[in-house]
Amino acid sequence: MEFDLIEAIRARMNVARGDVALGIGDDAALLDVPAGRQLVACTDTLVAGVHFPDHAAPEDIGWKALAVNLSDLAAMGAEPAWALIALTLPDADARFVERFADGFAALAGQHNVALVGGDTTQGPLSITVTALGFVPHNAALARAGAGVGDTVFVTGTLGDAAAAFQVRGLGPGTGDPKKRHTELLARLDRPEPRLGAGLALRGLANACIDVSDGLLADLGHVCAASGVGAELNADALPLSSALTANFDAEACRQFALAGGDDYELCFTVPSVRETEVVEKLARTGCRATRIGRIAAGSGVRVLDSRGSEIATPRRGWEHFVP
Amino acid sequence: MEFDLIEAIRARMNVARGDVALGIGDDAALLDVPAGRQLVACTDTLVAGVHFPDHAAPEDIGWKALAVNLSDLAAMGAEPAWALIALTLPDADARFVERFADGFAALAGQHNVALVGGDTTQGPLSITVTALGFVPHNAALARAGAGVGDTVFVTGTLGDAAAAFQVRGLGPGTGDPKKRHTELLARLDRPEPRLGAGLALRGLANACIDVSDGLLADLGHVCAASGVGAELNADALPLSSALTANFDAEACRQFALAGGDDYELCFTVPSVRETEVVEKLARTGCRATRIGRIAAGSGVRVLDSRGSEIATPRRGWEHFVP
Repeated sequence: MEFDLIEAIRARMNVARGDVALGIGDDAALLDVPAGRQLVACTDTLVAGVHFPDHAAPEDIGWKALAVNLSDLAAMGAEPAWALIALTLPDADARFVERFADGFAALAGQHNVALVGGDTTQGPLSITVTALGFVPHNAALARAGAGVGDTVFVTGTLGDAAAAFQVRGLGPGTGDPKKRHTELLARLDRPEPRLGAGLALRGLANACIDVSDGLLADLGHVCAASGVGAELNADALPLSSALTANFDAEACRQFALAGGDDYELCFTVPSVRETEVVEKLARTGCRATRIGRIAAGSGVRVLDSRGSEIATPRRGWEHFVP
Repeated sequence: MEFDLIEAIRARMNVARGDVALGIGDDAALLDVPAGRQLVACTDTLVAGVHFPDHAAPEDIGWKALAVNLSDLAAMGAEPAWALIALTLPDADARFVERFADGFAALAGQHNVALVGGDTTQGPLSITVTALGFVPHNAALARAGAGVGDTVFVTGTLGDAAAAFQVRGLGPGTGDPKKRHTELLARLDRPEPRLGAGLALRGLANACIDVSDGLLADLGHVCAASGVGAELNADALPLSSALTANFDAEACRQFALAGGDDYELCFTVPSVRETEVVEKLARTGCRATRIGRIAAGSGVRVLDSRGSEIATPRRGWEHFVP
């Protein structure tokens, strides 16, 4: 039965890559890494009841399990290539597996990711995906590297997924199109990894991270790894109209600073290259907003429009925090 | 707290490899695959209550989570290099994590495997490890490739882990040293992946698989992938003295044919190379036993000493089988 489930997943994948010498069906996959490239590898787990509701749509679970990993590759400036799935299921529900695979395949197809391995086991529902990709030697973006004076940017908009987490279960929202929750929920359930932006930032960004735990927490990681601090302009945080239509300014700021699951990229660039960054990302269809600057010291401070520091909310989503 | 747990694991690892350009602590690892090598990748999950008892020693869980993956690399003839851990835990039990990491590190140290990535999440206890290694181009061992007339071999002894599963909880066994259960339990809790044997079999074996689901099931996969059948000699199955001292002949045969968790290698070689194989593996400290031959047709038949087919037990461990 294990083999039928893996076969059910494999059968729904629609990406074939010439660099897969041996895919699903043996003890391990055999893969050809292109000459001159470094391998980029990451793994992330989604657990039912923790990272998604127990009754989430299987298609959304499949999509998101891959998306959170591709977001890590994006933050490295990597080109994705292959993925492995470890799927733990309470029972052998073929329809669940097919729908899960459809969601996974939809995102994999967009980014030319081939599924090359998998394991299905019985147990409480959880999914671990390992994503593999490439970067040219010495071209990867890392957390370390932010320099004092760098401008801090973020792609897209922040806080939508955290807001969606709050409105989940409240229904579709009001009749006013702007106040419907559909867009917010899509940000939570079907995050779009910023792979094109990551590629565009090679050779431009000094440091980069994906915003999964919340902007303050993740920019904090960049600062710690780089030995610097950061100052953010609270009024500059990019917010979607779906967010501002449904929540007041203070709630929006909280979501944008401390909410998780954004899967945007936060990165720093030398200030002389600000315009170049905005234009280059715009050509990939991605908005980039200047939200602050790197400063000497440590930690992330948030400033209001008069330059006064404001109290910051809890520093992002971390597991096992009481 | 998530970062503290990962750091607790990282701090207990004792392998540093020059081919790790960027390890734990960024969005993804950056790895250098040697020129002329193919990447070999696999992933396997262990779930509490399914693959190990709820109160198993954390050191054993850490060891086994890596061992089952290294066994897959061994079956490909691969040299292991890197691993990623996705650890899901009910609560942030630092002592559990340290002990888990100690067991993982003990095996990783034996085989020069560097931990390069990880994720810790809250949820029911389970561990997914992804193992990465290399083989020279076109040197990997696969399941397909067994030819009619090939001799079927298996490394080590079979059935010990399945027997241990049965005696677990019965205590240490009788006072007779041969009838103690210690050796059997060690086979279940601390399997030794056959990496040296896998390397030695490059260029020798026509097909290879690791015996994780049980000999009949796994040799069945080789036969299906190769489009052949196999005949096994029931009396040739290699059994440990720890097994034969504790169980009658029929039980030993059942464990050896259908028990899982052996993590030995089952492989086929052209019959003219039988002696060469036995001698070459002996030099790696690994016993190899001739247990049958590849035949035309399909499926695995088990023959007694007079050449008559005998009824075979259930075909190995599969998840979701009622």
